[in-house]
Amino acid sequence: MEPLKNDSFLRALLRQPVDRTPVWMMRQAGRYLPEYRRVREQAGSFMNLCTNPELACEVTIQPIDRYRLDAAILFSDILTVPDAMGLGLRFLEGEGPRFDKVIASAEDIRQLPIPDPEVELRYVPDAVRLIKQNLHQRVPLIGFSGSPWTLATYMIEGGSSREFQKAKGLMYDRPELAHQLLGKLADSVAAYLNAQLAAGVDAVMVFDTWGGALTAEQYRLFSLDYAQRVLDQLKLRPDGRRIPAILFTKGGGLWLEAMADSGYDALGLDWTIDIGAARSRVGHRVALQGNLDPVVLYASQETIRTEVGKVLASFGHGSGHVFNLGHGVHPAIDPEHVGAMIEAVHEYSPAYHAGA
Amino acid sequence: MEPLKNDSFLRALLRQPVDRTPVWMMRQAGRYLPEYRRVREQAGSFMNLCTNPELACEVTIQPIDRYRLDAAILFSDILTVPDAMGLGLRFLEGEGPRFDKVIASAEDIRQLPIPDPEVELRYVPDAVRLIKQNLHQRVPLIGFSGSPWTLATYMIEGGSSREFQKAKGLMYDRPELAHQLLGKLADSVAAYLNAQLAAGVDAVMVFDTWGGALTAEQYRLFSLDYAQRVLDQLKLRPDGRRIPAILFTKGGGLWLEAMADSGYDALGLDWTIDIGAARSRVGHRVALQGNLDPVVLYASQETIRTEVGKVLASFGHGSGHVFNLGHGVHPAIDPEHVGAMIEAVHEYSPAYHAGA
Repeated sequence: MEPLKNDSFLRALLRQPVDRTPVWMMRQAGRYLPEYRRVREQAGSFMNLCTNPELACEVTIQPIDRYRLDAAILFSDILTVPDAMGLGLRFLEGEGPRFDKVIASAEDIRQLPIPDPEVELRYVPDAVRLIKQNLHQRVPLIGFSGSPWTLATYMIEGGSSREFQKAKGLMYDRPELAHQLLGKLADSVAAYLNAQLAAGVDAVMVFDTWGGALTAEQYRLFSLDYAQRVLDQLKLRPDGRRIPAILFTKGGGLWLEAMADSGYDALGLDWTIDIGAARSRVGHRVALQGNLDPVVLYASQETIRTEVGKVLASFGHGSGHVFNLGHGVHPAIDPEHVGAMIEAVHEYSPAYHAGA
Repeated sequence: MEPLKNDSFLRALLRQPVDRTPVWMMRQAGRYLPEYRRVREQAGSFMNLCTNPELACEVTIQPIDRYRLDAAILFSDILTVPDAMGLGLRFLEGEGPRFDKVIASAEDIRQLPIPDPEVELRYVPDAVRLIKQNLHQRVPLIGFSGSPWTLATYMIEGGSSREFQKAKGLMYDRPELAHQLLGKLADSVAAYLNAQLAAGVDAVMVFDTWGGALTAEQYRLFSLDYAQRVLDQLKLRPDGRRIPAILFTKGGGLWLEAMADSGYDALGLDWTIDIGAARSRVGHRVALQGNLDPVVLYASQETIRTEVGKVLASFGHGSGHVFNLGHGVHPAIDPEHVGAMIEAVHEYSPAYHAGA
C-alpha cells in the first residue's frame, strides 16, 4: 500500500512536527449529515448499518469527502464487543443502547465468552478493509472500542445509567467479580482492536465514556488498569512499533497524570479542562486531543471561530495537539457550522507551528 | 438565644479544632426516611411541603432526631428563587423540576423582578424561625440556595438538561444578556440568603449543581464570579463577622484553586476527587466538605464503614473537614445504612483530631 497522503494526525499523536494542527471530530460520521441520514434510512436500523461493511464504509468516508479532515474513524459502536459476547445490543428510537441480557451473577461472568473478532465481529474487520481500500490513503483510519469499564457499566445496568448503582454495587460489594468481568473485557477488547489493526487501521482509540463517574481510586483500579491491559496486548506492527493509541476518559481531567503514565500516546480531553492547563500537567509525556465544547457548534459561525481560536491559543505553540470536540457532535448541528470549525483550525493553527 | 450545644460543624468550617469530624448529609431530610414520606404524603405535593413552615420544620428535624448528625439543613428546594420571580415551579412525579415559564429573550430578563424574600419567599424565613425554635440549639442550621448559574440553567431550559444547549447558547451568542440574568440572580440569591440569615440560620451553602458542565473560562466568568457576588452581599452578624459559607460545585474538582480564592470558607466536593489531593491543593485556605460516593450506601454496612474510613484517612489529621456525601442521598437507600455511615464517622474520626 502506498504511504498516507496526509499523516499529520499520526505525527501529532507522536508529538512530531506538523505544519498545522490536525482536526477530526468524534461522531463525524453521523446524524448531523444529510448524506448519513439517507444511508441510515436505507439500512433500516443503526445495527444494520454497523454490521453492513459496504454501508459502514460509505458513511465513514462521507465526512472526509465533505470536509478537510485529517482522520477518518471507523463507523461502528462502542458496544459491539458485549453484543458479540451474546448480550444482544439494540437501539430503540429516541433511547440509548439496550442489552437483552444483563450480567447479574458470578455465573453470568464465568459463562461470558471471549469473542473471536474474525468470527463474531467479522463485519468490523471487513469494514476496515473496505474503508482502507476506498480511502486511498487520503487520511489515516482510526479504529476504536469502548473501554472495559464503560462496557461493563452497560452490561451490568442493561443500558445507559445515571448513577451506576448496579455496576458500582458490584465493585463495592464483590470487587473480585468486577475484576473477573473487567479482565475478560480487556482481553476481548484487545483481540478486537488487534483484528482492526490487522485489517489496516492506522491508530486506535479507547472510549472510556463513564470513567468520570468513579472515585479517583476506583478509576485507577477498575478503569485505567484495564485500559492499560488492553494497550499492553496490542500487537506490534511489522516495523516493531506499536500503533498510536488514544485514551479518552470523559470527566477524567482530575486524573490526567495517571492517564499519562498508562502508556497511551495521546489523551482525549472533554471541554471542562483548559487544554493549556492539561498540557502543563502532562504535555511533556503525551499528545492531547480536544477539546471544543460541542455546544459551541449551535452558536454563530463567528462565535465558533472565536472559540476554536481560544482552544488553539490555550494549547499554544508546537506539536502534540489534535483538534477535536470535547465529546461527539450533536445530531441537530448544522453541517455548515462544522465546516466553520474545521476551516478555522486550518486558518488559525499554522501560526502555532511556524518553524516546524 | 442560648449558645449552640454542638458547634463542631461551624468550627470545622472555620478550621478550628474539633474533637471529631462533624457529619451531615445532603438531602438528609428526604424520601429515604419513612417519617419523611408520611409528612410528604400529608402535604400532597413537594411544593406544598416546601411552602408550609410547620411541615418543613418537621422534616428538617426528623434526621436530627434519628441520627447523631452535627448540622440540620433547611428543608427547601434550590429553585425557590426563580419560582418567586414568577416562573412557576412544579415537580411532576418521577420527573425533575419544571418551570411553567422560561427565559427566552432580552425582554424576559429585563422584566424579571428581584423578589422580596420576606414577601414572595416569606415561607422560607418563617420555616427558618420555626426550625430554630424547635431545634433548641442542638446543632447549627444551614440555609441554602441554588447558585446563580444553576438557577439560570433551569430558567432558560425550563427544567433539567443534559447538554444545556439553550443556557450555553445564551452565553456563547449573547454573553451580555447572560450577565444581566446572572447579575439579577446573584442579587436575588443574596437577598434570599440574607433573609434566611436574619431569621436565624447559622451557615449558608450555595449549590452549584451544574457548574461542572462549563469550560474552565466559563466557570469563572458565569458561575464563580456570581457565586462570589452573592457572598460579597451577605450581611455581617452583630459581632461584625460573616456567617460561614460553603460553595459546592458538582464536577468542580478541576477548579478548586479558583473556588478557594472566592472567599467562601469551605468547598463542597463530589466523590470524583480524592479529598486528600483536594486538601493538598487548597486545604490551607478553606475547609472541605464531602465526599463519600452516595452509591456506597447501597453496599453492605461493612463496605460502608470501610469507605468512610478511606475518606477520613485521605483527609488525614487536623480540622477543616466536614464529612458528607459527594451528592444527595438517594431515595432508595436503607436508613440503617445511613446510620452505619454516621456511626463510622463518630467511631473513626476522633483519631484524626487527637491532641486538638
